[in-house]
Amino acid sequence: MAGYAETLDTRPQVVIIGGGFGGLEAARGLRHAPVQVTLIDRSNHHLFQPLLYQVATAGLSPAEISAPIRAVLRDQANAEVFMAEVTGVDVAGRRVLLGDEAMPYDYLVVATGARHSYFGHDDWEPFAPGLKTIADATHIRRKVLLAFEAAERTDDAAERAALLTFVIVGGGPTGVELAGAIAELAHMALARDFRRIDPTAARIVLVEAMPRLLGAFPEDLAARAQAHLEHLGVSVLTHTAVARVDADGIMAAGERLPARTVIWAAGVQASPAGAWLGAATDRQGRVIVQPDLTLPDHPEIFVIGDTAHLEECSAPLPGVAQVAIQEGRYVARTLQQRLRRQPEQAAFHYRDKGNMATVGRAFAIVAMPRFRFTGFFAWLTWLVVHLYFLIDFRNRLVVLFQWAWAYGTFQRSARLIVEEASQQVNSRTLAPLQPPS
Amino acid sequence: MAGYAETLDTRPQVVIIGGGFGGLEAARGLRHAPVQVTLIDRSNHHLFQPLLYQVATAGLSPAEISAPIRAVLRDQANAEVFMAEVTGVDVAGRRVLLGDEAMPYDYLVVATGARHSYFGHDDWEPFAPGLKTIADATHIRRKVLLAFEAAERTDDAAERAALLTFVIVGGGPTGVELAGAIAELAHMALARDFRRIDPTAARIVLVEAMPRLLGAFPEDLAARAQAHLEHLGVSVLTHTAVARVDADGIMAAGERLPARTVIWAAGVQASPAGAWLGAATDRQGRVIVQPDLTLPDHPEIFVIGDTAHLEECSAPLPGVAQVAIQEGRYVARTLQQRLRRQPEQAAFHYRDKGNMATVGRAFAIVAMPRFRFTGFFAWLTWLVVHLYFLIDFRNRLVVLFQWAWAYGTFQRSARLIVEEASQQVNSRTLAPLQPPS
Repeated sequence: MAGYAETLDTRPQVVIIGGGFGGLEAARGLRHAPVQVTLIDRSNHHLFQPLLYQVATAGLSPAEISAPIRAVLRDQANAEVFMAEVTGVDVAGRRVLLGDEAMPYDYLVVATGARHSYFGHDDWEPFAPGLKTIADATHIRRKVLLAFEAAERTDDAAERAALLTFVIVGGGPTGVELAGAIAELAHMALARDFRRIDPTAARIVLVEAMPRLLGAFPEDLAARAQAHLEHLGVSVLTHTAVARVDADGIMAAGERLPARTVIWAAGVQASPAGAWLGAATDRQGRVIVQPDLTLPDHPEIFVIGDTAHLEECSAPLPGVAQVAIQEGRYVARTLQQRLRRQPEQAAFHYRDKGNMATVGRAFAIVAMPRFRFTGFFAWLTWLVVHLYFLIDFRNRLVVLFQWAWAYGTFQRSARLIVEEASQQVNSRTLAPLQPPS
Repeated sequence: MAGYAETLDTRPQVVIIGGGFGGLEAARGLRHAPVQVTLIDRSNHHLFQPLLYQVATAGLSPAEISAPIRAVLRDQANAEVFMAEVTGVDVAGRRVLLGDEAMPYDYLVVATGARHSYFGHDDWEPFAPGLKTIADATHIRRKVLLAFEAAERTDDAAERAALLTFVIVGGGPTGVELAGAIAELAHMALARDFRRIDPTAARIVLVEAMPRLLGAFPEDLAARAQAHLEHLGVSVLTHTAVARVDADGIMAAGERLPARTVIWAAGVQASPAGAWLGAATDRQGRVIVQPDLTLPDHPEIFVIGDTAHLEECSAPLPGVAQVAIQEGRYVARTLQQRLRRQPEQAAFHYRDKGNMATVGRAFAIVAMPRFRFTGFFAWLTWLVVHLYFLIDFRNRLVVLFQWAWAYGTFQRSARLIVEEASQQVNSRTLAPLQPPS
């Protein structure tokens, strides 16, 4: 990589950090541009995050919602991919820092996404994992499935009740989707698989601090989603702030709720890109960008997706895939205009195509700018849209098959508890698994 | 579980340790027997080990070759499943020990399988992982895929060569299948995905101490398999004992072979069941059983599968799925005869239905008692047999689809590098990944 600076390639170097929706769309938008594109990501795959909750609840396998970034950009001759961890940006020297190495750029696109945030309570994380990566999803899947296994083994009634209580903190789309999927896992897929416990008696609790679920959706749709969740057996607690999370469960509304499984879906925090760039950020760490998505005084640096804060109608754009995709496309177009010395396009404008969330296996809510609907037809719409945006054609077929099978049989395809690496080291000696305490 | 001893269930308690081929077959064979069956396994899934090498080489996803043991035994009313780690057996007291707890039995079936063995060089394990569990397979997959990523990043020619050298130690079926699959991964699936390295220049080396590969197969078939491996670009070194394995590669035949990826497929060692039972074992730790698969002086204890040593024609039965399955079936029949006070069947006799191994994507060798064949038709036979023995019907369809797709496109479905747990703990703070040094 040191050889980079001495390369004879005289095309402008565009470095994109992050292979999510925004970064990948920017890279692909530059496929005919006279530039050299380098996409850097810490992982080797693009992840279709909207379906990550299905991996966490054993409905899909990780590979079914991911695609190797290299394979996606294989036929784009002007693009290359590096799997590497960015440690900073030398803004003055126009270099991306990768530990001891550095990669020069002429244009930089930062699309590093977000992680979950514990609002200052980082000590809650070990007890309430969040859901952003595949490792997060398989960790949650393991935790949920192990809780049923441990409940089957215990003779202690209070312990069994805590093991069969699943708390999801945060009533946004991820929380709602997780709660619905866990309720169905317990009440349908696992219903007849145990002899001593009754999985259908499992308690799923969705906790939200605001007065209602799904704040980004119209109120009537959110009410329908809540009614359907309750129909699936989920206890929905709105107006309920979580005061404490520990190994025994949560404390909320002055009461203790014993639960061995708590999942965090309550807040996000942008990646540390703001610190790398020395840029102004909002409270969630998102970089405040100009209307053309550049950094003030740095027209060569673009920030997009969940890492960027751009206001429209006096509210920041939401952290959803559509915003990232449209921003990535916008940046690619801007760069091409600049390189061709054409007049630059107007400020970025988000075209809201609608918003949807699914609740269980045959119900969704869809809010489009002109109309809204719920129920089975909304779920079919959700299904078609999500299949369409899955990047790999093979994955579309496999996911469609898995969904059709699950719909017909109520079963899940990926009920797999895999040892985690720390345990794996000793597995040759058949050392005891961490007892599911 | 303490309540177990006090249960009012007066049916004889049959405890089976291990949910592999043998244990599961024993449990299912008892479905109409007047007994209470308890199957204990440390993991929650039955694993179809013959296809594990395809998970390690990104061809299949873990869930596609596994099935939850509970789901398999769901409809068997007299069976229950515990996910737990066995720590010993109280032979005199007829109890299986699970840490602080104990589970009484009237009959015990030990089917705990085997792990890989480093022939006294356990210090080689960190550098040369073996392949027995799903965690092993995803660990090897990660290692192999990361090697290509790191090679793309480095400017050091010697380092790049070591990163692109893959050594498989052991020329049995697993080693042969791994070598063929890695050769195809490098030379076909990844061929056009990199810009700085040429994956087709990757070196795959299969090292075997004996004079030839596949000692369990007839010599002409093994020669054909070797020729096909060499046609795929694998360097086969027979007569070559490995003297040392470390972070830099291996030492064999007095020479050092620098390689960042070494995979161990050279030897197995039985689970510690011999120690639990205080029974005589062979050099590989397998329990020496009577012709009816029981322990001497303990007609209530059966040992089967890879954990058992039983000689036929003055050679121990091989550690293959068919032996375990037939032994499991035999034990279930014996138990039923005893309970019905019928005369017991004759000593166990293994009916060898044949042996097969696959080399790459359209070539296999098949050795049946009466005839043998190689090539494409052998591969189709291999494919049909393996699909047939996959336990879950959904998995059969998905695996068939993945194979058909891979056959048509040369692509792999599961090229996924997932962070391992030790790294995951810090991932919220976007801490650097272990640099792929």
